[in-house]
Amino acid sequence: MITLDDIDQAQGRIAPYVRCTPLIPVNALSAPLSEAELWLKLECLQATGSFKARGATNKLLATPPDEMARGVTTASGGNHGVAVARAAKLASVPATIFVPTTVTPAKIEKLRNWGATVEVVGSVWNETNLSALAFARDKGCAYFHPFADPYVVAGQGTLALEILDQQPDLDAILIAIGGGGLITGMAVALKALKPSIRIVGIEPVGAPTFCASLAAGHVVRLDSVTTRVATMACAETDADVFARSRNLIDDVVLIEDDDMLDAARWLWFEMGLAADLSGAAAIAALLKRNLVFAAGQKICALVCGAGPDGLV
Amino acid sequence: MITLDDIDQAQGRIAPYVRCTPLIPVNALSAPLSEAELWLKLECLQATGSFKARGATNKLLATPPDEMARGVTTASGGNHGVAVARAAKLASVPATIFVPTTVTPAKIEKLRNWGATVEVVGSVWNETNLSALAFARDKGCAYFHPFADPYVVAGQGTLALEILDQQPDLDAILIAIGGGGLITGMAVALKALKPSIRIVGIEPVGAPTFCASLAAGHVVRLDSVTTRVATMACAETDADVFARSRNLIDDVVLIEDDDMLDAARWLWFEMGLAADLSGAAAIAALLKRNLVFAAGQKICALVCGAGPDGLV
Repeated sequence: MITLDDIDQAQGRIAPYVRCTPLIPVNALSAPLSEAELWLKLECLQATGSFKARGATNKLLATPPDEMARGVTTASGGNHGVAVARAAKLASVPATIFVPTTVTPAKIEKLRNWGATVEVVGSVWNETNLSALAFARDKGCAYFHPFADPYVVAGQGTLALEILDQQPDLDAILIAIGGGGLITGMAVALKALKPSIRIVGIEPVGAPTFCASLAAGHVVRLDSVTTRVATMACAETDADVFARSRNLIDDVVLIEDDDMLDAARWLWFEMGLAADLSGAAAIAALLKRNLVFAAGQKICALVCGAGPDGLV
Repeated sequence: MITLDDIDQAQGRIAPYVRCTPLIPVNALSAPLSEAELWLKLECLQATGSFKARGATNKLLATPPDEMARGVTTASGGNHGVAVARAAKLASVPATIFVPTTVTPAKIEKLRNWGATVEVVGSVWNETNLSALAFARDKGCAYFHPFADPYVVAGQGTLALEILDQQPDLDAILIAIGGGGLITGMAVALKALKPSIRIVGIEPVGAPTFCASLAAGHVVRLDSVTTRVATMACAETDADVFARSRNLIDDVVLIEDDDMLDAARWLWFEMGLAADLSGAAAIAALLKRNLVFAAGQKICALVCGAGPDGLV
């Protein structure tokens, strides 16, 4: 899998096509969220509405054009799909995005606005992915895996370079886990550049993929995935991804779906931010006191995706 | 009316209670919005969801506590009301907020979440305001005018200090006009510190309050206000406010309500930002090419308030 070099190269490659998103101190709240000093990394303001633009764009720029002549495809609960649709548009090739039945109508509309064909198949990601793989094989188009791809993982890792550049003095960082690509890319960069930083993963109680795998010491396939958060509904991570990050992640905290909804509402009311449920996951862990930090600590919560969830 | 000194003092006074909001360069779009280099000032991420927190907090901190012993009141299409509700909460006094019938349910809910009592009266602001004034007189509570108050105007002006600090090299700035307090406070600071900057006000076709007054050379009371944008539905500005800014504003551009809606959708799709219609007004003027800037120019559009308008 990847090294810091791959992430540095990704940063140079994708810079013209993505945004350096703001890292903002959280103050002027009606009640403090944590004893620690808290920063939010507003990756919900990234192009396409999530960090996934980084990985998909890096993958696109690393793929030979002739391999994409018949288009690109992927399977995604939403955000990676949107990012691949936009990447395909940059390269002027067609995109076909497979999504699970749990996807929101807003995400489907967004995919279509970026010019993609949308196929709704399967209730969990692994099922949806089989259709995308079959489609890629049948049509001869390029397949962009949402997390088990070194270029995608390296692209997501560029977020860590940006955060450390914006605030080098962090004690801990809170990162939502879906398939594991984001936390793995970020952990590689973070631990290489700042070994003391504590990396905390956040997973839904209804899809504790990394939590179960870390406990077992190897990749575990969950018997059931019960979270309604499509972007975090992954039954099994990738062996190479897991091998790369298992010793870099300090903790994984489990949170309820409803706590993510409360956190999305908190982000809207207190901060004016429209986050999706996975984008609110890190805040949920603080809001529900699943994670407590001491006064004087400096922590960063990643708001990894935009969505309307907290506004209704 | 106010001077740069008043705005400097306001900045020192309100700093612990408000946010320095991000100024972000706009890039990685599906199509460019302007030939110029564009920055967005994300005042939609301000405490309470708009710039109004600045003015209301400055007024609160400048008002003797005994004048607020029986509470505070105001009339507001929404954002100023929310800001006054929060200010009252900071001072632990009750707030009664009068809103016109055009206000959105989301704004009413937000007012109640900040602990205010909400009274819905009148279809345009001036009508609503008569009820608020009568209430203040009857109950003996403090009245915070949304724009015809030097402390409120000075508070809004702190936005200009922040923007010039974040990007000193701006050629023009686009500012939505409701009652005129925001553009007046900002114009005083901007023209004092950077006389060359072009200040462009944005008004709805259905409430051209400043446009008509500038054309007449004195404050004009509009016969009818037809915009559905409650936060910009003002029939008449204040004589002192107008006198202070009439020679500082370079242009006023009129836009349709539907163009603001398109702009709010643009902000959501392209930027992941949930703006209200007045928050999208400056973008509407660019999107619809009512305002065209040359390549090489550096311009700032103020996203002055958060809202769900662009998400549906």
